[in-house]
Amino acid sequence: MLPTPKMYKVVAGSSEGRSSLTAFDGALLKAGIGNINLIRVSSILPPGAVYKPDLEIPPGSLVPTAYGSIVCKEPGKVIAAAVGVGVSENNFGVIMEYSGYSTKQEAEETIRKMVEEAFALRGMKLVDVKIAAVEHTVEKIGCALAAVPLWY
Amino acid sequence: MLPTPKMYKVVAGSSEGRSSLTAFDGALLKAGIGNINLIRVSSILPPGAVYKPDLEIPPGSLVPTAYGSIVCKEPGKVIAAAVGVGVSENNFGVIMEYSGYSTKQEAEETIRKMVEEAFALRGMKLVDVKIAAVEHTVEKIGCALAAVPLWY
Amino acid sequence: MLPTPKMYKVVAGSSEGRSSLTAFDGALLKAGIGNINLIRVSSILPPGAVYKPDLEIPPGSLVPTAYGSIVCKEPGKVIAAAVGVGVSENNFGVIMEYSGYSTKQEAEETIRKMVEEAFALRGMKLVDVKIAAVEHTVEKIGCALAAVPLWY
Repeated sequence: MLPTPKMYKVVAGSSEGRSSLTAFDGALLKAGIGNINLIRVSSILPPGAVYKPDLEIPPGSLVPTAYGSIVCKEPGKVIAAAVGVGVSENNFGVIMEYSGYSTKQEAEETIRKMVEEAFALRGMKLVDVKIAAVEHTVEKIGCALAAVPLWY
Repeated sequence: MLPTPKMYKVVAGSSEGRSSLTAFDGALLKAGIGNINLIRVSSILPPGAVYKPDLEIPPGSLVPTAYGSIVCKEPGKVIAAAVGVGVSENNFGVIMEYSGYSTKQEAEETIRKMVEEAFALRGMKLVDVKIAAVEHTVEKIGCALAAVPLWY
Repeated sequence: MLPTPKMYKVVAGSSEGRSSLTAFDGALLKAGIGNINLIRVSSILPPGAVYKPDLEIPPGSLVPTAYGSIVCKEPGKVIAAAVGVGVSENNFGVIMEYSGYSTKQEAEETIRKMVEEAFALRGMKLVDVKIAAVEHTVEKIGCALAAVPLWY
């Protein structure tokens, strides 16, 4: 089997770019995860995984990551992305991702409600929520991204 | 290299949610795969992989999974998702995913044809097809999902 | 952790299909990567990874792959996909993917600029770019795909 991740951090970043993909690339760099290979996962915090805000990952690594992102090409628009990690007492947790046309604060409120809904759906007790969020006002081609890299 | 999966099951589920992502989350839970980390793959059944309908996977595991899903926000609409695993005699197989506005029966017929096309394209003989499908009538925000988790 | 890939190739292919997914499947087969399990990554060439144009990968393998693809259902339209791998002197590289309504030549020019932008953003010196691109004129349902499979 594939090894189950043991630690995580929450990050967010935004950027302009000359294309959608290079705006996304710039947002990854701003979030500090631009030089690794994201493998998108959907999206459970493994039991026992530890929060490591200063987690460093070697360039080129394959990194299971839950993320939400939005690219927008309308100058002046405000975009935002957020991730929330719902932590349980001694079981797995749930990760939620959001991106859309909103402020950072709205994104944070939305992601908190999504995490609460995910815990309610499982009949689990929520003991902590780690959130990262960012907002960005588009100049030409902008991207907002929030992510939860899982690591070992 | 990443280890090649050795077994699989086919599942489907649907749900309402307060957001697109929590509807998706609910559909995963109904399908019995809501507490694992799906890594989306595109989409071959490895040679020798065994069908295990009672396959249990520990929470938080990284699970290579082929899936199709649809989220719809129009009350009254019927949505469906289906997966089909085409099995060959003694070689790899092919997995197809479908989601769209249709009944469960239409989704099953569509997925069967897609598997047949994939085998014809490879000049391979199809000896069995495993299908899982679900339909859902949207109340507010609904999701239909079908998946083939691959495991070890 | 997941093992970091050690080699790569660049490929491209296009196809018609009876559905969007079988057109995509056909394009993968034309590109020579139709019988493996693509795990999409976003998208760094690991340090020291070696270019192997004749790389063969066993059927059913889980293969970290950066790719861009487009499916189009408008007869007569020209679609294209391209990937570019930017190689540095002795560090990691950056992979860019493009797909859209353009010729193969335009796709190649676009992808080259995207790789240059990614290197400029990182203040890195670009010493080589490997590109694969394809264009396709749609008959009924067409797909163009370009990919960078990473392997061991």
